[in-house]
Amino acid sequence: MAVGGRASVSATSGPASLQDMRRQNLAVVLGAVAAHSPVSRADLAGHVGLTRAAVSSLVDELISRGAVTEAAATASGRVGRPGRALAMSSEGPAGLGLEIGVAHLAACVVDLRGDTRVWRRVERANAGRPAGRVLEDAAALAAEAEAEASALGLRVEGRVLALPGVVSNEPGGLVEIVPNLGWRGVRLADHWPDPDTVPEPENEANLGALAEYWTAGRPSATFVHVSAAAGIGAALVLDGRLFRGTRGFAGELGHFPVHPDGPDCACGGRGCLEQYAGEAAVLREAGLTPPGADPVALLAERAGAAHAPTLAALDRAGRALGLALTATVDLIDPDGLVLGGAYAELADWLLPSVRAELAARVTVRPWAPDALRPSALGRRGPLLGAALTTVRRIMANPTLLPAG
Amino acid sequence: MAVGGRASVSATSGPASLQDMRRQNLAVVLGAVAAHSPVSRADLAGHVGLTRAAVSSLVDELISRGAVTEAAATASGRVGRPGRALAMSSEGPAGLGLEIGVAHLAACVVDLRGDTRVWRRVERANAGRPAGRVLEDAAALAAEAEAEASALGLRVEGRVLALPGVVSNEPGGLVEIVPNLGWRGVRLADHWPDPDTVPEPENEANLGALAEYWTAGRPSATFVHVSAAAGIGAALVLDGRLFRGTRGFAGELGHFPVHPDGPDCACGGRGCLEQYAGEAAVLREAGLTPPGADPVALLAERAGAAHAPTLAALDRAGRALGLALTATVDLIDPDGLVLGGAYAELADWLLPSVRAELAARVTVRPWAPDALRPSALGRRGPLLGAALTTVRRIMANPTLLPAG
Repeated sequence: MAVGGRASVSATSGPASLQDMRRQNLAVVLGAVAAHSPVSRADLAGHVGLTRAAVSSLVDELISRGAVTEAAATASGRVGRPGRALAMSSEGPAGLGLEIGVAHLAACVVDLRGDTRVWRRVERANAGRPAGRVLEDAAALAAEAEAEASALGLRVEGRVLALPGVVSNEPGGLVEIVPNLGWRGVRLADHWPDPDTVPEPENEANLGALAEYWTAGRPSATFVHVSAAAGIGAALVLDGRLFRGTRGFAGELGHFPVHPDGPDCACGGRGCLEQYAGEAAVLREAGLTPPGADPVALLAERAGAAHAPTLAALDRAGRALGLALTATVDLIDPDGLVLGGAYAELADWLLPSVRAELAARVTVRPWAPDALRPSALGRRGPLLGAALTTVRRIMANPTLLPAG
Repeated sequence: MAVGGRASVSATSGPASLQDMRRQNLAVVLGAVAAHSPVSRADLAGHVGLTRAAVSSLVDELISRGAVTEAAATASGRVGRPGRALAMSSEGPAGLGLEIGVAHLAACVVDLRGDTRVWRRVERANAGRPAGRVLEDAAALAAEAEAEASALGLRVEGRVLALPGVVSNEPGGLVEIVPNLGWRGVRLADHWPDPDTVPEPENEANLGALAEYWTAGRPSATFVHVSAAAGIGAALVLDGRLFRGTRGFAGELGHFPVHPDGPDCACGGRGCLEQYAGEAAVLREAGLTPPGADPVALLAERAGAAHAPTLAALDRAGRALGLALTATVDLIDPDGLVLGGAYAELADWLLPSVRAELAARVTVRPWAPDALRPSALGRRGPLLGAALTTVRRIMANPTLLPAG
């Protein structure tokens, strides 16, 4: 894995070197190519505020590392030598995203331009199976996706796996617990067939939030992304960066005590948010039998048909979510709140009561109702975020790419 | 104000320069002098991993800017020229901290070694007085403190004012609201007598948290500091940096809906934390008449005398605080929780019930009872944090100091 390493600590304690400067300047030039592509070397120098000679040296390195391509000379309207257009490489470096869910596996490959080039998804009942078997299946799907990418001229430089569980902050990313798969203390390298392609695990809510941040047109730099699958998770993007907490447990919104004397929760607490806004609780309150396939689709279908108990259950869920989000806004002072995952698909019925609670209770700080919005990516976010993680790392530090 | 500017955005978008490198290396060398003082140039080079020549040039600049002093030559046990010991300057650059409370004004001056050299405090009923009059009094106290510092050979390079209110993130730091003083939308420069000494305002809870972080022996890098004065405030230190939120409102713990159907709160919400753990609520529940001078001392005195209603009121406050802190731990995943301000003085009676709630409700994440502790600084934290802010800025960027 060429582009690895999680939660890297910025080395503010050591002296700065010429190498640090060059790395930073490579990133600045690559960012400018991405923003202005196609662009000539001369125009690029103007954009970044470095000399033409400095930019040319940096561009040459970016080309040799496969991040940038240079088209054949084209005539321009200007006096002098015609410019050769620089652009982000559509072949070469790419990021692989993987996802293991309760009932599916998925893989995708994204190129340096951020374009999705490969997307595969298979239904698979993973809950309760041994982690090693599930990971073998995921590795097989990953290999297929990499082969497909390779046929497109792409070279996977990093691999990230989205999981509905908690991943520790330690290097290597121990998977602490995945409640709905029945995993505890799983180290991917112990099970992955090929030691050269072991992915880095990450919590799916975190990756969904990052995907939202990286793909939104005018993103909030500080927002909380709440998503629901079988459980409820939140991810915090603060000043443009994912905040994972001391141990990787940040964003455990599902066990906020929204009604302290409420019903017992499986976690050992009482009146936790999941007892009101979790999938199982909403289905129970709506009087619906959990279906085998897609409970979210069932809830949306019943709510769309104005089924009164379903509407009441979603209203109750929204009010509880509004209480938890009131505390979240008070504590974090975010620019926005995003409802992702299953909540994005149920937003029509959740948003009114969530907004009512926020309006009544967020009083010290100014709060605009439309600061709460559903995610545009919905359930696709985590897989996309997994693949984009590698792309963003390369953009921030092009020397992660092998020299040509 | 030589060392100004709040919430500076790190310029990751521009190219790196030799000037950036030198600034960073000056900070590394100054940090090493602080850590190893007294220290020779040769030993310093070893500590920071730069050449002796590079270190000498950096040291010369630090001396000319007044940050470092060099003792006369002393004989060492080593072969060769005797080393001259470098140390942090005990004269020269310093930071001024100011504080405006409901019933007092205070000022202090801290030198580059972090030592408090001047400390002044006067009782003054500030609530309800016009902001301009209070600020004139604060400016007079600041001038006295600066004169005293000047007599000690110190030169104040930056001024920060601690306030029990919300300060916006915008440059210049508009004071949005100070509920218990009756201020709203106050810009200090409009009232401060001397335009050259206008302080930068900051929320007192934030400064208390930073003081805790900067002075603790082995600090948590990610912790939440909860403090109570007339209201309840929290401050978030995340990865070693104060997190202020999008608008400066982060940490508004006082209006967490701990019992959503509880009593009405003055904020417009219901069942807010302040209705259970705020000073007025605890006094009321304890059946005590709010005293003129020091309600916290009264509560501590009654609790120490085993006054049953006071003990019950503090137990109830601790339980409510435990609910709010459960949500805080779930969301932030901090390394520690610190009870500061008045809570530090009431910790003996609050801690048991706060810990009981945390133990019962923080279940997904491992939680150790002693991760919750009272602040060692107590009510002195905010003023100290205000003065240390300037010292820390100089340590991070010595070029903020005027060249000699």
